Amino acid sequence: MQKKTEQQRTELKDLGEFGLIQRIQQQFPTKHPESVLGIGDDAAVIDTGTDHYTLVSTDMLVEGIHFDLSYVPLKHLGYKAVAANVSDIAAMNGTPKQFTVSLGLSNRFPLEAIDELYAGIKHACNNYKIDLIGGDTTSTRAGLVISITAIGEVKKEEIVYRKGCKENELICVSGDLGGAYMGLQVLEREKQVFMANPDMQPELDGKDYIVRRQLKPEARTDMIYELRDLGVVPTSMIDISDGLASELMHICSQSGVGAILYEEHLPIAKVTYDTSVEFNIDPTTSILNGGEDYELLFTVKQEDYDKIKKNAEIIEIGYVLPKEKGVVLKTKGEQIVPITAQGWKHF
Amino acid sequence: MQKKTEQQRTELKDLGEFGLIQRIQQQFPTKHPESVLGIGDDAAVIDTGTDHYTLVSTDMLVEGIHFDLSYVPLKHLGYKAVAANVSDIAAMNGTPKQFTVSLGLSNRFPLEAIDELYAGIKHACNNYKIDLIGGDTTSTRAGLVISITAIGEVKKEEIVYRKGCKENELICVSGDLGGAYMGLQVLEREKQVFMANPDMQPELDGKDYIVRRQLKPEARTDMIYELRDLGVVPTSMIDISDGLASELMHICSQSGVGAILYEEHLPIAKVTYDTSVEFNIDPTTSILNGGEDYELLFTVKQEDYDKIKKNAEIIEIGYVLPKEKGVVLKTKGEQIVPITAQGWKHF
Repeated sequence: MQKKTEQQRTELKDLGEFGLIQRIQQQFPTKHPESVLGIGDDAAVIDTGTDHYTLVSTDMLVEGIHFDLSYVPLKHLGYKAVAANVSDIAAMNGTPKQFTVSLGLSNRFPLEAIDELYAGIKHACNNYKIDLIGGDTTSTRAGLVISITAIGEVKKEEIVYRKGCKENELICVSGDLGGAYMGLQVLEREKQVFMANPDMQPELDGKDYIVRRQLKPEARTDMIYELRDLGVVPTSMIDISDGLASELMHICSQSGVGAILYEEHLPIAKVTYDTSVEFNIDPTTSILNGGEDYELLFTVKQEDYDKIKKNAEIIEIGYVLPKEKGVVLKTKGEQIVPITAQGWKHF
Repeated sequence: MQKKTEQQRTELKDLGEFGLIQRIQQQFPTKHPESVLGIGDDAAVIDTGTDHYTLVSTDMLVEGIHFDLSYVPLKHLGYKAVAANVSDIAAMNGTPKQFTVSLGLSNRFPLEAIDELYAGIKHACNNYKIDLIGGDTTSTRAGLVISITAIGEVKKEEIVYRKGCKENELICVSGDLGGAYMGLQVLEREKQVFMANPDMQPELDGKDYIVRRQLKPEARTDMIYELRDLGVVPTSMIDISDGLASELMHICSQSGVGAILYEEHLPIAKVTYDTSVEFNIDPTTSILNGGEDYELLFTVKQEDYDKIKKNAEIIEIGYVLPKEKGVVLKTKGEQIVPITAQGWKHF
């Protein structure tokens, strides 16, 4: 009924994820004084008038784009969907408290499948001590869509944004990287083998760690509690969902700084390294661009070094440079190369 | 790769929407004392430690299920998606403050389409004085999915739940009903005409009101402010998204009461009435089961009658009965008939 007219058509892929976010952000300045921070960080920040801020983060996961149910068990999917949102609250140095889940699903899913998904969600509730407080369930023509909104809180003086780090501060991560990405490569390979010959058993021997990193990652709320115990408030922080390179670029652009990472300090598990080699992928590429590890990337002041070195899980991988030095990697061969990254290219 | 085994299969349609919600609700009791109310009302209720509660409501809209882009302009869709969530906050007697929007969309949508959608969202931001504070954008294999989470607040002593009304209290609605449903019937008919003959112009003359009720409904935040001005706190409230019958059943079952509605008092616009007759639909059925009008259904104490009668938009349609009297309609023919209702049957 709507008349077709000659219209301009700009493809979303030409704009890219960050271009689209920026466009929306510019169109929607916040007006309420309680809306402390809107679009542009891991979570939005609301001031309800106490000594804490309320944090809000939301994510949508789509079948065929973010997960493949031929090898992702629904229970793990439920867990991971919650963990990914909890991770965003943690990235603001916050404590997750509540969340909502909206599900869109086709009639190919029976009640038993929904029960499996909610069993994983329940497991995440218990592990992260959060309450499911609402949601919506609807049908779709095909496929599963999960939309989660997590709510948390953080003491006002302890909130950490992407913006805030300064020259000479240390850049740290909470654990090894690239595992989730290589786990995905292994699962995809075994799917291809299975499709070619359904009698073949999947070969996942020795790959348990990276497969778990992909299927059932953990949000590092434990690291947030650890940093509190150490008396360290990071100067900037982000969770690594898209990949170290991409997240570091966010911190640098929002803080107006540059950064140098040392390739030899980048943490990688042996199985991630070996599997990268097996797949002819440079292990450093897995680390920098892998994504979905949900570790925390953060910066701390030099004077906090003595505190953080007490925790063996915190790894210093570089330091903050002035903006004009760019965002670079010092390779094992002592070369300085620029780090580049971009968001999704689903479209 | 997952072994197929003989498994029990229960269809979601056999459980129904309310059965599924109840099942999830039972499995997820809240644990944090701050989580005042979880699943089961128009919005969840969080106590952040001030004299206000924080309210959270979420909804998912799916193309082909909730809307048909062959006659729903994207701008209206964006507006309606926000209004539906604002309406849930209003139904708790609350004031909407912020919201997040997650979009899943296929590459058939160019940037210009996203801009249209956000233009409608922006219009809703201005009308309802709310801030867009976050979201997510991802691709889908087909179709558009919109997930919105609205956040609001309400003074603790003024919160209104579905539960809370008592015998003899008055049952009221904030405006006429059935219009959105009849608007949908008209749009669907014109779509069929257009598909049969694309040269035909849609005949929407005189149907503007009901088409607008369907495409661009308003959340009744104005009524919330009006009730505050009148000094009336309803004893129970819900917004009419699924239809009057269904919403009244929620209030009655949660409050442990029965109710009687008077057919002759049920508000319907002339065009809704006439179009119902034109479509051979009993106008009372349009009112009771139509849905999507987003008016407020609420109960007030008898002593508040003098206050509410000052507002011509508030219509008394019945009163609360003891539980054993059931939920009934007194017809224009003076007959007493039971009211029945159920949620979606999409599956």
